[in-house]
Amino acid sequence: MNYQKMNSDILDQIKTAVGATSVFTDEESLATYCHDETEDLKYYPEVVVKPGNAAAIAALLKLCNELHVPVTPRGGGTGLSGAALPVFGGVLLSMEKFKKIIEIDTENLQATVEPGVITEEFINAVAEKGLLYPVDPSSKGSCFIGGNVAHGSGGPRVVKYGTIREYILNLEVVLPTGEIIWTGANTVKYASGYNLTQLMIGSEGTLGVVTKIVTKLIPKTSQGVLMLGSFSENEAACAAVSAIFRAGVTPSALEFMERKGVEWVIQFDEIKFDLKAGVNAFLLIEFDGDDLDTIFKDCEKVNQVLEEHGCTEVLFADTAQQKEDLWRMRRTMAESVKSNSVYKEEDTVVPRAALPKLINGIKEIGSRYGFESVCYGHAGDGNLHINIIKAGMSDEDWKNKLRDGIVEIFQLTTELGGTISGEHGIGLVQKEFMPIKYSELHLNLMRGIKAVFDPNQILNPGKIF
Amino acid sequence: MNYQKMNSDILDQIKTAVGATSVFTDEESLATYCHDETEDLKYYPEVVVKPGNAAAIAALLKLCNELHVPVTPRGGGTGLSGAALPVFGGVLLSMEKFKKIIEIDTENLQATVEPGVITEEFINAVAEKGLLYPVDPSSKGSCFIGGNVAHGSGGPRVVKYGTIREYILNLEVVLPTGEIIWTGANTVKYASGYNLTQLMIGSEGTLGVVTKIVTKLIPKTSQGVLMLGSFSENEAACAAVSAIFRAGVTPSALEFMERKGVEWVIQFDEIKFDLKAGVNAFLLIEFDGDDLDTIFKDCEKVNQVLEEHGCTEVLFADTAQQKEDLWRMRRTMAESVKSNSVYKEEDTVVPRAALPKLINGIKEIGSRYGFESVCYGHAGDGNLHINIIKAGMSDEDWKNKLRDGIVEIFQLTTELGGTISGEHGIGLVQKEFMPIKYSELHLNLMRGIKAVFDPNQILNPGKIF
Repeated sequence: MNYQKMNSDILDQIKTAVGATSVFTDEESLATYCHDETEDLKYYPEVVVKPGNAAAIAALLKLCNELHVPVTPRGGGTGLSGAALPVFGGVLLSMEKFKKIIEIDTENLQATVEPGVITEEFINAVAEKGLLYPVDPSSKGSCFIGGNVAHGSGGPRVVKYGTIREYILNLEVVLPTGEIIWTGANTVKYASGYNLTQLMIGSEGTLGVVTKIVTKLIPKTSQGVLMLGSFSENEAACAAVSAIFRAGVTPSALEFMERKGVEWVIQFDEIKFDLKAGVNAFLLIEFDGDDLDTIFKDCEKVNQVLEEHGCTEVLFADTAQQKEDLWRMRRTMAESVKSNSVYKEEDTVVPRAALPKLINGIKEIGSRYGFESVCYGHAGDGNLHINIIKAGMSDEDWKNKLRDGIVEIFQLTTELGGTISGEHGIGLVQKEFMPIKYSELHLNLMRGIKAVFDPNQILNPGKIF
Repeated sequence: MNYQKMNSDILDQIKTAVGATSVFTDEESLATYCHDETEDLKYYPEVVVKPGNAAAIAALLKLCNELHVPVTPRGGGTGLSGAALPVFGGVLLSMEKFKKIIEIDTENLQATVEPGVITEEFINAVAEKGLLYPVDPSSKGSCFIGGNVAHGSGGPRVVKYGTIREYILNLEVVLPTGEIIWTGANTVKYASGYNLTQLMIGSEGTLGVVTKIVTKLIPKTSQGVLMLGSFSENEAACAAVSAIFRAGVTPSALEFMERKGVEWVIQFDEIKFDLKAGVNAFLLIEFDGDDLDTIFKDCEKVNQVLEEHGCTEVLFADTAQQKEDLWRMRRTMAESVKSNSVYKEEDTVVPRAALPKLINGIKEIGSRYGFESVCYGHAGDGNLHINIIKAGMSDEDWKNKLRDGIVEIFQLTTELGGTISGEHGIGLVQKEFMPIKYSELHLNLMRGIKAVFDPNQILNPGKIF
């Protein structure tokens, strides 16, 4: 792709388009927006733009489309696949001023919200009205809901409530050519031509810039129970996962954690937890609903399944503090691992009954390549986050051989009926692995769709395919 | 579009591609496939092809793509928007031989099924394994699951369980150019590039021919309660709908029926039902779950909401027969109306709290144009099927003025935040109304996507846009 480099003339035109006070070229700004939460990657934008409304974004994109200047949209910067990195320089478009919860419509159980709203703030705001927005990725305290839309985000509750896909009704989008459209309608059903709302979800900011989001909401449940099952073997814990569903129970969360992850989170976050000898894997299982008796019946069923799968101990979180601690343990695991070692994170997903094969395969691949791994994640969805730990691997092997090991991991997920990413997206860092799962023909369909929306390839270029 | 007319040479090539025994040109075959369940429309194909496997379809599409011969895929022929009508002649591709339920995977709660399986047969097959596939459109006894995918189908249970969109994990698709791809992965989470599975759903057979479907399944519930609320006014019944959700209850079905619809179904289907004077509207409300106490608590809440909204009587269906009768009443309403009058059916959808405005608006428009209407449908989703009844309208007005009335109806749904179709699709008959809701730019995005998949416009041309 052939893009224009930034110059003072273009910069002036950008300032005219969006207003000079929204445009930043100071070193600190460029440094702030040169990275996200992906491992060690830095790409500096040439200019940072922070518009305050859709019309300004429309003017910006129209201009950049005409001038062939790349534009990379960015939400909270918590991405794990490098989708918000401005790999070709150009304009970094920060959505941080889009902070308004425009409406929580308690008549229709819908909300209209701007993309720069922090996910947790939105969850709390609807909870105050007795409603539930169940999409809560681990980064909910800092990620933006717009970034969640762009990545088709999940989180622990997908297992019962589904991904963000099931909660987005309609999107206001600025197209790369500068026009503004609404993708659909504010309805829970929609059979009126190609579903552009669904196409936009998970497109990682390559097809348009979302400027308003209409979400579905559901009634909030009043009761919750959290239990933690301990296992001596990863495989046994993973095998219990699909058995829980076969018993007719759908928990509201079903998370897997390896011992090493728990060890590190205890060190990192000073969480009090009695980590017993011989315990090597955990399942964190949550149930919600309005009736405690019903929940307890489900707990009993699950308890039995866990026992049958060699669970050595079941802990029920009795207090709100215990619940909070257990969830914090799970939520800060990624950060703990990062603080502890050179690592590389992958976001595998397979049909859930294939989890034992997946985890065994990862360990086997690791033993051949010399890396260790800490696995945890949304086991109920078959979605395992694999933190590859450098451990005894030499710097040279880490640099030159790790990639082959990762290729083997993705070959395995693909053979098991899974794919490259369950919820982190492809972005920059997984792009090279896409051909493991998808044919050139398949990727060309995606590229063709991209070209329909963005003929000059100015919006978030260099991502996905 | 410029298509080749059928001739003996092309016919021979088709026979070579798919096998002579799968190709039909007799008058009876052409007549059988010239219509679906849409009002009075007949378009004759030039040849009917009934292939038995994906490879044969690939060969057929490759050939037709080279020769510029249009191909119209067809499921069970129960469509209400004319999406399966071969408006340009050419090949009618019937999927009726794709009748296999390939696997019901009780480990992963997934099934792999061919598109020609009748929806109800699939529902029953998974129910035998204790599982639920909750997508049950009224035509479930004769529609194909492939047609449901093509239309993004719904049915009464969407209100709790979501549309077919939430149950389709992966699709094997023959592209118009003859290649075969799987659109995604067999996983409940997927963040690996543009979601072609979701794009295919609701694309009405214009982007590819689905040859295998991987569905998600969920545990079957064991208990169900059905209640019928009677109202003296449409508006009051419609207003109660959103109030039910505001009370924190999510029924598994919430259907609206007008008195006239009930009258006609009693005549048509000989259902025993005591239709009382002064009752003009009904809400049919179903609850499901595993715990009857919980269900009864929800019933109580709903009962109170109904009372507050002027409900004159609540009937609980005590026996399986009563439940069956009430559901049959709702399900055969479309057929009853059709048998009774010249009609035109529209499939409006709005945010559910807008239902009172929608139904009042429809009656007001009808009074100005001289048509009557019988409305019923999935009120819980804001999805109202409007059967426009010719009544006192002259033949000339029916022919010349009705369209303006329909335009007004769609203008109203659009103003209320809704759209042209909730679940019947656009197909042939709603195509002309798309510009009421969508800009030319928006429709051009759809056309652009179409061109990526089908550069020669051979697959189901003349539909949607």
